[in-house]
Amino acid sequence: MPELRKDPTTDTWVVISQERSKRPSDFQLPKETKAAGADCPFCDGNEAKTPPEVYALGPPDRQPNTPGWWVRVVSNKFPALRLEEWPANGGLEMGGFELAARMPGFGAHEVLIESPDHYATLASHSQEHLDLVLKALVRRYHDLGGDGRMGYMQIFKNWGHVAGASLEHTHLQIIVLPRAPKTAAHKLKIAQDYYHRHGLCLYCDLIKFEADHGERVIEETNHFLVFAPYASRFPFETWIIPKSHQHSFGQLTGEQSFDLSGVLKRLGRRLELSFEDLPYNLVWQTAPYGPGHESYYHWHLELLPRLTTIAGFELGSGYYINPTAPEAAAESLREASLAMAFAGASH
Amino acid sequence: MPELRKDPTTDTWVVISQERSKRPSDFQLPKETKAAGADCPFCDGNEAKTPPEVYALGPPDRQPNTPGWWVRVVSNKFPALRLEEWPANGGLEMGGFELAARMPGFGAHEVLIESPDHYATLASHSQEHLDLVLKALVRRYHDLGGDGRMGYMQIFKNWGHVAGASLEHTHLQIIVLPRAPKTAAHKLKIAQDYYHRHGLCLYCDLIKFEADHGERVIEETNHFLVFAPYASRFPFETWIIPKSHQHSFGQLTGEQSFDLSGVLKRLGRRLELSFEDLPYNLVWQTAPYGPGHESYYHWHLELLPRLTTIAGFELGSGYYINPTAPEAAAESLREASLAMAFAGASH
Repeated sequence: MPELRKDPTTDTWVVISQERSKRPSDFQLPKETKAAGADCPFCDGNEAKTPPEVYALGPPDRQPNTPGWWVRVVSNKFPALRLEEWPANGGLEMGGFELAARMPGFGAHEVLIESPDHYATLASHSQEHLDLVLKALVRRYHDLGGDGRMGYMQIFKNWGHVAGASLEHTHLQIIVLPRAPKTAAHKLKIAQDYYHRHGLCLYCDLIKFEADHGERVIEETNHFLVFAPYASRFPFETWIIPKSHQHSFGQLTGEQSFDLSGVLKRLGRRLELSFEDLPYNLVWQTAPYGPGHESYYHWHLELLPRLTTIAGFELGSGYYINPTAPEAAAESLREASLAMAFAGASH
Repeated sequence: MPELRKDPTTDTWVVISQERSKRPSDFQLPKETKAAGADCPFCDGNEAKTPPEVYALGPPDRQPNTPGWWVRVVSNKFPALRLEEWPANGGLEMGGFELAARMPGFGAHEVLIESPDHYATLASHSQEHLDLVLKALVRRYHDLGGDGRMGYMQIFKNWGHVAGASLEHTHLQIIVLPRAPKTAAHKLKIAQDYYHRHGLCLYCDLIKFEADHGERVIEETNHFLVFAPYASRFPFETWIIPKSHQHSFGQLTGEQSFDLSGVLKRLGRRLELSFEDLPYNLVWQTAPYGPGHESYYHWHLELLPRLTTIAGFELGSGYYINPTAPEAAAESLREASLAMAFAGASH
């Protein structure tokens, strides 16, 4: 029986269409083939094919823009926004008028190449390597926000052609915006309202609710809860949230970083065991730069599998139709851990 | 140079990334192959393969669920929402609590098969036939809203696999919801605010602005303005809006219906001349059922070509990146009319 469920963090309704209830094997996915080579700008040895690096981790004797790096951050070759668009008068006030408001395309757009290995995946990285990736992200978070002109950092990963990856070599993207974008502003407002009504963090309450309830929990570690949200928009949608209250990804501690690396690796492995070539987006939801959001916001990651198509109904109404109940999705991903244990891949 | 633009009807910012500016021939599209046959439930003669029809147009002597129809409306075989979910107590009050609110999956989900011809397209329909399609939609609009339990009708078309069409035979879908969905509620609120501030309809002002400005106009007829919106989310996004103030699609007059049929046919033709197998969504934006929205809302259609992927940035931030400036898109679609004239397909 179909059911409408509301996401308490966005006030958005989702149709959980259990009549169509789908398990991993019910989805048909296009096969993706990969090939490393001289053409891949993200492969080791092809450093000249990208804009110059802005940050990298590697052995101490390595020179910038040469092989041997472990993690490498470069400007996007085709940036959506650019630092050079900062207006001469230093103001971002809108030009145009009410019906045609505009701002300069000021911001930054970077690519974090997770590994020199063309065939690496979220699951194939070692936990230690993923820890370096996260530490590099935190470093970029602080460096890009440092001069006070930036309002928000959107970190995301497009994995697979269907999910928007134009290059198959595993990478993350960073877009820094002068102001908090629509989704962040909306989520902030809802969390703020909840805090005013209850004197509590909406997300802390949600963690308690989901951990107590259990049926949507995929994994719980020392520092993170991994769960299928009650109003999942996408089949097998998974959220990762720090258990202690923290408004910004920029606050990630060393201990949390290593723990989160294990969480991401295992989640990647669960998905690889459940699906062949699953396309997905991984998106960071964090507070804007600057003070004011400490009490009520709580950063988290959303992994959004792209098994369904965002079509006319979704674009027209803003509702999503999800053919897999999150309880069934969580059970299925929990069960995948058994296969992980048998395969000796549980960490 | 990239630029941020704001859609005045949604307050959503879009990145117009002109550095990547793309003309129709710059997009690569997967080739779609079509095959009519015994398996297509929407083909003439296969009426038994669908749920029973709820409405049809055809010759007077035709029996329901037999061949010979011109336009046919059936329940969706896998409905997202169902009339049978109406709760026994007649109330839709939310179950669950604040963190897990739910409603029964009450509503309706129908399919309008536009033509018995498997190979028909928006452009290949005659204007007279499209007029029948629109009249059937208006009829379903009133019939489904008639009993007072429904809040909103979302009409949409998914064309092409990438745009979410699971069946290739041309059709529209109708989902009726107990309440106005997120996007409609948001657009209503913004239009209402504008009306309170200016005493004018936001959309009437927008029509005047775009018609005066001209560079984003694709076509203007007696009753409709066809234009590329200033903050287009998608390359070649096109809106069709009635020039006289009308809050609901249910008010469409016979004269408007015939005019809109010509607009849709020519827009379809412009897109077919510009792209091979363009996937797109066509979504209706109209006021909810019932009184109260007459003064400030103004229905319209949005045609959303699916040339770009809704990826991690869009899902995370709610912003869109559009590589084709709407001014260039409008010029390109206007120019296609020359080819239409040469091909004798201008009406």
